[in-house]
Amino acid sequence: MASLYKHLRVHQIFGANTDVGKTILTTALSRASAAKKFPVFYLKPVSTGALEDADDRHVTKFGGKASKLIQAECLFQYDEPVSPHLAARLKDSNQTSRLCFLSSQVPSDDIFVKSVAERIRHHAKKTGRGAHMYVETAGGVHSPALSGTTQIDCYRPLFLPIVLIGDSKLGGISSTISAYESLLLRGCIIDAVVLFREDYYRNWEYLTAYFKERGIHVSVVDPPPARLSDPKEDAEATEKYYESVVSPDIVNGVSDLVDYLDARHAVRVQDLESMPKRTLETIWWPFVQHGTVKGPEDVTVIDSAYGDFFSVARAKQQSSNSPISILSPDLDGSASWWTQTLGHAHPALTMAAARASGRYGHVMFPQATHLPALRLAERLVHKGPGKGWASRAFFSDNGSTGMEVALKMALRAYTLRNGSKFTREERKNLGVLGLKGSYHGDTIGAMDACEDTGVYTCEWHDAKGYWFDPPSVGFKDGKPVISVPSSLSAGAKAHTVPAKSLSWIYDVEDRLHTPLARAYALYVRRALDKIEERGQKLGALVIEPLLMGAGGMIFVDPLFQRVMIDTVRGRRSGKSTEWSGMPVIFDEVFVGLNRIGMESTGPLLGVNPDISVNAKVLTGGLIPLCVTMASKSIFNAFLSDKKAEALLHGHSYTAHPIGCEVANETLAQIDRLEKSEDWKVAKGKWNEYQGEGESKVWSLWDPQFVAEVSKLPNVKEAMSLGSVLAINFEDESAGYTSFFAQNLLQPLKTASPEGGLSAAPGGAPYGINYRTLGNVAYFMTSLNTTSAVIRSVEDKIWKTIAN
Amino acid sequence: MASLYKHLRVHQIFGANTDVGKTILTTALSRASAAKKFPVFYLKPVSTGALEDADDRHVTKFGGKASKLIQAECLFQYDEPVSPHLAARLKDSNQTSRLCFLSSQVPSDDIFVKSVAERIRHHAKKTGRGAHMYVETAGGVHSPALSGTTQIDCYRPLFLPIVLIGDSKLGGISSTISAYESLLLRGCIIDAVVLFREDYYRNWEYLTAYFKERGIHVSVVDPPPARLSDPKEDAEATEKYYESVVSPDIVNGVSDLVDYLDARHAVRVQDLESMPKRTLETIWWPFVQHGTVKGPEDVTVIDSAYGDFFSVARAKQQSSNSPISILSPDLDGSASWWTQTLGHAHPALTMAAARASGRYGHVMFPQATHLPALRLAERLVHKGPGKGWASRAFFSDNGSTGMEVALKMALRAYTLRNGSKFTREERKNLGVLGLKGSYHGDTIGAMDACEDTGVYTCEWHDAKGYWFDPPSVGFKDGKPVISVPSSLSAGAKAHTVPAKSLSWIYDVEDRLHTPLARAYALYVRRALDKIEERGQKLGALVIEPLLMGAGGMIFVDPLFQRVMIDTVRGRRSGKSTEWSGMPVIFDEVFVGLNRIGMESTGPLLGVNPDISVNAKVLTGGLIPLCVTMASKSIFNAFLSDKKAEALLHGHSYTAHPIGCEVANETLAQIDRLEKSEDWKVAKGKWNEYQGEGESKVWSLWDPQFVAEVSKLPNVKEAMSLGSVLAINFEDESAGYTSFFAQNLLQPLKTASPEGGLSAAPGGAPYGINYRTLGNVAYFMTSLNTTSAVIRSVEDKIWKTIAN
Repeated sequence: MASLYKHLRVHQIFGANTDVGKTILTTALSRASAAKKFPVFYLKPVSTGALEDADDRHVTKFGGKASKLIQAECLFQYDEPVSPHLAARLKDSNQTSRLCFLSSQVPSDDIFVKSVAERIRHHAKKTGRGAHMYVETAGGVHSPALSGTTQIDCYRPLFLPIVLIGDSKLGGISSTISAYESLLLRGCIIDAVVLFREDYYRNWEYLTAYFKERGIHVSVVDPPPARLSDPKEDAEATEKYYESVVSPDIVNGVSDLVDYLDARHAVRVQDLESMPKRTLETIWWPFVQHGTVKGPEDVTVIDSAYGDFFSVARAKQQSSNSPISILSPDLDGSASWWTQTLGHAHPALTMAAARASGRYGHVMFPQATHLPALRLAERLVHKGPGKGWASRAFFSDNGSTGMEVALKMALRAYTLRNGSKFTREERKNLGVLGLKGSYHGDTIGAMDACEDTGVYTCEWHDAKGYWFDPPSVGFKDGKPVISVPSSLSAGAKAHTVPAKSLSWIYDVEDRLHTPLARAYALYVRRALDKIEERGQKLGALVIEPLLMGAGGMIFVDPLFQRVMIDTVRGRRSGKSTEWSGMPVIFDEVFVGLNRIGMESTGPLLGVNPDISVNAKVLTGGLIPLCVTMASKSIFNAFLSDKKAEALLHGHSYTAHPIGCEVANETLAQIDRLEKSEDWKVAKGKWNEYQGEGESKVWSLWDPQFVAEVSKLPNVKEAMSLGSVLAINFEDESAGYTSFFAQNLLQPLKTASPEGGLSAAPGGAPYGINYRTLGNVAYFMTSLNTTSAVIRSVEDKIWKTIAN
Repeated sequence: MASLYKHLRVHQIFGANTDVGKTILTTALSRASAAKKFPVFYLKPVSTGALEDADDRHVTKFGGKASKLIQAECLFQYDEPVSPHLAARLKDSNQTSRLCFLSSQVPSDDIFVKSVAERIRHHAKKTGRGAHMYVETAGGVHSPALSGTTQIDCYRPLFLPIVLIGDSKLGGISSTISAYESLLLRGCIIDAVVLFREDYYRNWEYLTAYFKERGIHVSVVDPPPARLSDPKEDAEATEKYYESVVSPDIVNGVSDLVDYLDARHAVRVQDLESMPKRTLETIWWPFVQHGTVKGPEDVTVIDSAYGDFFSVARAKQQSSNSPISILSPDLDGSASWWTQTLGHAHPALTMAAARASGRYGHVMFPQATHLPALRLAERLVHKGPGKGWASRAFFSDNGSTGMEVALKMALRAYTLRNGSKFTREERKNLGVLGLKGSYHGDTIGAMDACEDTGVYTCEWHDAKGYWFDPPSVGFKDGKPVISVPSSLSAGAKAHTVPAKSLSWIYDVEDRLHTPLARAYALYVRRALDKIEERGQKLGALVIEPLLMGAGGMIFVDPLFQRVMIDTVRGRRSGKSTEWSGMPVIFDEVFVGLNRIGMESTGPLLGVNPDISVNAKVLTGGLIPLCVTMASKSIFNAFLSDKKAEALLHGHSYTAHPIGCEVANETLAQIDRLEKSEDWKVAKGKWNEYQGEGESKVWSLWDPQFVAEVSKLPNVKEAMSLGSVLAINFEDESAGYTSFFAQNLLQPLKTASPEGGLSAAPGGAPYGINYRTLGNVAYFMTSLNTTSAVIRSVEDKIWKTIAN
């Protein structure tokens, strides 16, 4: 991840194309820095032969007075004058460099990035005072790096601020702007554009105006003299050239550029230092009690993010010559509030957002259509979670609004069928049937579908319904069990039921004929009878299938939810998609789209909903979008010739093309993951662990690890599905307001050295940004988090809890 | 705007760089098309001299058998071998071309694009059967066009599908991918990448794999032979080369590419034809009564959008050889549900979205911070609508959720101060004071703050509060008047009060001492007393200042709103930001951020709110984001040491960086508009029209036009502020369910020829996609819509209503 030191300014030099003068201008920058008495580290991680002659002339011969200050080095060098990936392939074992100190075997991107990061850390440690470092790239911004990934994507985890060398040749305006845009698409900080003055095509003129409008500094530098045949004369001419271009007398020249880059560096550091305080002065955070925020040290400053990691700034903590980076990686251990699917800043999602923005911006949706929305609806309804039951997709902006839509749908359908019996007051108070611990969002309609516990509430909260205590699933002392709450136990005492395996617990069909199923059914039936007796009217069944997240990561016994649905519907689920009893809503906002290892929960439960809601993962962790799907019989409840009887719900940005296109890309990427080796391996582990053939459930977390954690003395239960790991700690003051888990796991927050490179990109020690729900700690990865990262997190968790 | 014909397939040829073989490969494509017996139009809108020699060899000498079928032409030709904008500047009047038929004066982008569009329309009309057209560009994708705009941005309104010529030289992998990404950022349809086979650098190998992964076809073509000194031999060699590369025997060669492009064209047309039906099968629209949708003809298919226009497909209506484009421009007359600010697909907003996506993706927000959110909060609180009163910014996803946040804030503050008197039931039923016709969003909490009219409602809707009949403002028979409803009239009869000018009506301070002000105050005071007498408790004042949108574009008399606030607060607004009486919420979701010509309404009303909500324009019309701002005294109501007493509201994507960055860019662009000539001119017109110095209000619509419309017999009132124009028609069956306005304005929907080029980019005739609210029709532009477009729309409206 990103490195940033107060005393070492590092810039990466990218070229708009090959042969635009990267090496010459980087040399000029180095010499200008040295002329200002800064130690300079000139790193060229990869060098290919074609450029070597020119390189030799510039990089390695620092005949000037400041030469002692410049230390040049190269990590991987190849003879062939071709793109690095090809050079590496052609000359895999034919290493020739005198500068290289690493093998020229083609390294993986991860190892490559770690070597570069190591060099930066190395120099940061060695230099005790202000220094400059320039990291030169090879070819253009998208030239392939050694492993074949294009350079920007390969270097992106380091997130170094950039100087872009523009192209002064014919066509160079275009290539410079395109290169700039490619860098923008990776979120890069582009501090300056530099190019040669060339007065026939005058690209510098156009580009200076172009970039000025975009707030980017442009320096124009005289080109070097033509090469002379006599080596001595050539060396003299070259030396003279450098002396002239780095002269501090030149206005807006290389010397001024060095000052400008210093200033940008200082502003960046200052920004990072001031952000916590400024945030505490202007921001009102969601779900945060500001009264308990002690001060700036309680503010997490996220400077950028990549893959599973935030790049977090701890600027105030570092002294002005600290060898420790201001920025360090923190694992995004809550998947940024359960949204991350493919990791942060995934280029495919950025491209999807960009192409929809470029084609449509936003276009209004009522009685209109566009390809991103239509394709998404078709994918979801026909091939996604709606397969086999849904007829329509209704878009809104987030899980909460999507649940309000679902409730409006269900209650209208119910009222139309049964409403003649109801007064207006009864209609207003139609309740839902659900589970205790449910959460459906923060808008008041969504809140009203949840129990009022007195904790999570507000003035207008008017909970309408009846909520069962849920039996739950987890590993206890290393074994999978079902915990049955006292209200469901004949002896009125909570107890656990051991299970032969976790997979068996999720084999709902198989368990339908067990005594527990009969006990559940009897219990639900009796409760419904009592509700009816006291005249309470219910109009919808609303559940978060399998896992209730915000309520405390409660893995609900799927059998109980199946029995609830069957009982309410009064029929075993058949092929009919006509709703019966009352409409069933699946709130899959959190669990849906593979968050817990399955696209939707219907197939496992053996029943489909009448209405379902998906969000979060839907857009891969990028931007808000929600879809509420409904069966035909629900849709028909709103059909008439009266406008006022339509579903009068819509947000301005309904079905915004960017969200829909990003969702389409996300689903395509998940389809690839379904076939990936990583998932195959993870699934294999769960099959093997349970030893019963194909497991009904699986997780990216190791089954053995989950079971072992559940045996620890502090731990009550542990459980995992998909990318979710939950650890329930023994704590007397259980509940939303408990701080037990938070305190116990506190050490995880700190990045502690691991005696070697960490699993984070760049290899710096990393901390874990995790969240707790009372006495439950949970850890959530993206769907494509590598097993290396997950194993490393398991290790950290184990060491923290087991000690 | 985009042209698309069933019988004429048009592709635009972009180059990854200059000198990559665009002309050669376009010639090859033309010859391959001709070899398949298609008439071919080869258009090179701009040609610069340097390429002419090469061009001559390829473009103009079609010695092959199919040459008769190929018609090559150029619109602007220059001698100088430099970028077109420079060539145009250097040789403004030195025209040499034998192909040019237009002046070589530098045309504006608009005229340039219209000339190209005209050529396409011309050929579509002339050819009666399947034909191909290739439009070649000059240089690279971002090479400046004649006027200086870069080519992609200049051509973007035409939205032609693209063939990208890749670069086979060293560095060409990078320049090809960057060029592709620049095209993506404009939303382009890239049908294929073509490049020369070159076996040293082997770019084709890398690029074929790269683009395959992205679903893009790559064709690799043998390079041409070296030029021979003998012209005759050279011509023969060239001819032989073309014959060989266009041979249908070559697998995946140019001939296959032509078939592939034909297939893509066919798929696109089929998609556009099938979209209406598919949409009716899977989409559930917001606010649409599907029961009244007659069929596919009622579905607006938006293929792309640009500036103020949708590119709308009417595929089914066109026969297979129709000379009329399937795609035609429709003015986005409702600013896509009131969101558009800078027009569709504005590159600056796309770049903002891209750079935030590339830097962060989304990162979770509780107790965290990132630059886009912090900068936005600071801008809004200190320099934006929060200036002078707000202390904090709270982010959510849309106006509705932002209003729920506002209500939670206000009611909590009110309850804390007065709550000891209340029962739980009273707290749940705390009402708001507002106006009839209010609308605050579709989530149930937001709905509960509006009157239940029986039309816009749902099962759980439980309206809590008291709503006044609003006095309103408008032009009636050419004069500005205030309409006072019967409930406010002493004689219990509605009446109008003439005003000396519109500006005077909005001079609230000046009117505070008028008899009307006293009458308003008395009325409000009495109503509040009655409310208190009957024991109803109110906890917040909630208004849409100046203009109630969804309720029927009601321009509320600002004096009445000021009096309401003053009365409720029990004090004249002073410097104190401590709320009094009850918290005042400004719902500026629709009116805020210059939609009605002012950044916020507080300065005009002379009072600030305690809480305000902004959305829609906030993100420039791109993606959902909302901000609720609050004063310090409101914020303090939630401060304690108990988590459960915090504002427990948050959405997963709260303060998503993309939304925040786009908002920052939007506000910066609006700052530029504030200083723009266009706004100065529009404001000047309103000053002049009223003749009283600087008008308190202004509009992009012409004051004379608004006044004249109000005189028409069918029209009851007309009114305009900022980019909003509302026309209230005389109709007995007034109200939400009226279809009068819709029927009367029906002709506007159809694009009728204007006897010349239209104001739409490309100049095709355009229709207007407008929306009505019962008997009110409104028209809304972006904030940067040109006066040319607005005048043209005024003309169309006038012709339709006046006839």
